[in-house]
Amino acid sequence: MSEVIMLAEKAREAAGRLAITSSGQRNRALLAMSHALTHHQESILEANTRDMDAARAKNVGASLLDRLELSPARLKSMSEALRALSLLPDPVGEVVEGYTMPNGIRLSKIRVPLGVVGMIYEARPNVTADAAGLCIKTGNAVVLRGGSLSVNSNITLANVLSNAATAAGMPEGCIQIIESTDREAAEELMGLHGLIDVLIPRGGAGLIRSVVENAKVPVIETGVGNCHIYIHSEADADMARKIVINAKVQRPGVCNAAESLLVDEDVYERVLPAILKELESAGVAIVADEATRSLGAVMRIEAATEEDWGTEYLDMKISVKVVKGLDEAIRHINTYGTKHSEAIVTNDYMAAQRFLNEIDAAAVYVNASTRFTDGGEFGLGAEIGISTQKLHARGPMGLTALTSTKYIAYGSGQIRE
Amino acid sequence: MSEVIMLAEKAREAAGRLAITSSGQRNRALLAMSHALTHHQESILEANTRDMDAARAKNVGASLLDRLELSPARLKSMSEALRALSLLPDPVGEVVEGYTMPNGIRLSKIRVPLGVVGMIYEARPNVTADAAGLCIKTGNAVVLRGGSLSVNSNITLANVLSNAATAAGMPEGCIQIIESTDREAAEELMGLHGLIDVLIPRGGAGLIRSVVENAKVPVIETGVGNCHIYIHSEADADMARKIVINAKVQRPGVCNAAESLLVDEDVYERVLPAILKELESAGVAIVADEATRSLGAVMRIEAATEEDWGTEYLDMKISVKVVKGLDEAIRHINTYGTKHSEAIVTNDYMAAQRFLNEIDAAAVYVNASTRFTDGGEFGLGAEIGISTQKLHARGPMGLTALTSTKYIAYGSGQIRE
Repeated sequence: MSEVIMLAEKAREAAGRLAITSSGQRNRALLAMSHALTHHQESILEANTRDMDAARAKNVGASLLDRLELSPARLKSMSEALRALSLLPDPVGEVVEGYTMPNGIRLSKIRVPLGVVGMIYEARPNVTADAAGLCIKTGNAVVLRGGSLSVNSNITLANVLSNAATAAGMPEGCIQIIESTDREAAEELMGLHGLIDVLIPRGGAGLIRSVVENAKVPVIETGVGNCHIYIHSEADADMARKIVINAKVQRPGVCNAAESLLVDEDVYERVLPAILKELESAGVAIVADEATRSLGAVMRIEAATEEDWGTEYLDMKISVKVVKGLDEAIRHINTYGTKHSEAIVTNDYMAAQRFLNEIDAAAVYVNASTRFTDGGEFGLGAEIGISTQKLHARGPMGLTALTSTKYIAYGSGQIRE
Repeated sequence: MSEVIMLAEKAREAAGRLAITSSGQRNRALLAMSHALTHHQESILEANTRDMDAARAKNVGASLLDRLELSPARLKSMSEALRALSLLPDPVGEVVEGYTMPNGIRLSKIRVPLGVVGMIYEARPNVTADAAGLCIKTGNAVVLRGGSLSVNSNITLANVLSNAATAAGMPEGCIQIIESTDREAAEELMGLHGLIDVLIPRGGAGLIRSVVENAKVPVIETGVGNCHIYIHSEADADMARKIVINAKVQRPGVCNAAESLLVDEDVYERVLPAILKELESAGVAIVADEATRSLGAVMRIEAATEEDWGTEYLDMKISVKVVKGLDEAIRHINTYGTKHSEAIVTNDYMAAQRFLNEIDAAAVYVNASTRFTDGGEFGLGAEIGISTQKLHARGPMGLTALTSTKYIAYGSGQIRE
């Protein structure tokens, strides 16, 4: 039996026992895990140093190095996140609905853990602690498979957290990490139908696509966001400018940042120049259609290609296009968007309603930045990712996204006529 | 472009327009579809006769022929089911939850259609009408792919329903049927990531397995039910007997019928003989472990093999096993069950609670027949299948299982700090 199957079978056994732990027991385990991160700070940072050295030797870029690096301050914030999780209400056990059947059977639909959650993710080692915490909170076992750059950090973190959780009464095997970072190990994990209840990939578009293509277990697609801001002809120009700058510049490397700007042809000559200038002075590279380029508002605007309309830059870059009006804007977004977050700026009531109704995305905004699509902002308390699919969960996924339901029925001898 | 991709793209376009139809419009379309089934009875029955003739020429068995056959009475009941659907409350548009963010953005999570639903199913032509109706009710476009035996019935039904729906104002292409019954066509449908939002297979274990293995689009697994009745040592013997007979005999060909009986070793000598005799006289074939066979209660009990414990017979056959007690029963069910419906018969409070907590299945019963796991019985009004997976929907799936959600946000210029 392969290492991956062995880990998954241990996780499945642990899941059976986890499902009958109490909320109080699980919260105590989260506190122990929180404590362990600071208690074992030295070994975790030592493992991280090995990862950082190896990454530098591979000439990994600065932004990736930054995501990879752990520090006492970052460990403290990971530790605090686990403590905060212990204080959130527990969705497991909630009676979602109930009904007494005409024959007297009392039926309840109750929230239960999913079972075994698989996580496949890239460089950031904090995902290891986040995912382990969210899974323990919701009574799920977890099988982690992180990227190769953070392999030492991930293994050390997972061992520290797993030991703390089991010492606090959680079943052996509840937090598993696949040490191999070979592609084969990930593919094996994706194929474990019957052992893995859901697989959540977190990372770039390539990783997500590979998981969706190859998995035989249920997958929740997350996080690819080719988000648009659409400035309608009835937009307040100043509001539009502030929203575009915020959505693009405030944190360009995240999935809810704007990647593309659409402007109605009635107003682009009046509205766009100030926005383009502010984008340029913020250091944003601009690619655009002919109409925008002919404005000559800023020094250099390259021509946008067909590929640009479908690209999530995750960087200080934006594509700009003039559209005929609402219909073209909606069509463009539903064609090139990734169903993540989309915004219209307008003071026209009917245009706002049509945009909300007709745009097919997890979150649709009128007169606000797309940057708000986030578990914390949406009041979910914690987030395991942002679903861009429609099945099971859509948009920011909080604790309930890690649960399923089960019907329980109290009878007194009823049989079906 | 292949036929399957063309159909799916038409369905996707229709889905965009369907999503903005009103509940009233969709209910009127359902009434038109209901009417069309009786109005076009002649051509539907003529197509069905061709299917029946071809099936008889292939020496198809009697029970399959029965599932394949349409009659004026069966068409009438399909027509009435569509009318009943039009009267059910519409889940689409429901505000699931809402929240005003600290910055004043008003956020609502609303129920929306899934988009394009793919259905892959076997012989029963009534699934064509059921699926089309459920999808139109919930604002989804549907791509149907039925089995080869009922191909003429399915194509005629789909065309009648599609014409009626579009004549009543639904968008062109909202009900599509793949005419080819080749395996390649089905596999192509399973691969249409981005065009199909969910694929629901309905049929035997082989079909379900093939879809789960091959699909690159999200799948909801349905309907395989290796269901158990467990007679605990504290069971009322008479209640146990009635529940076993009902769960096995009342309708053996359905997924919520019992396939396996477990009995505590403390009571099997007292409880089993009467049950075995009644099963035998009802015509049920019995396979069992040594303890049961040594009872000599009935004429012929074959030895159960390891394979029997995992088999859904869907027939007048049951496997019987004596277990040491609750722990072994739970372990056996969680090992061999298909997470569908499971029942304990007991008067012991703690045993009942442990069974409800520890059995991992969509529906878990105390002192009632497993035969109740059904959308109608559970008060859902209509059912598109019974999910045996944990993601998105579990147990009988009503109209809400055909929906997703979307966050809509009303701002007034908010940007993220």
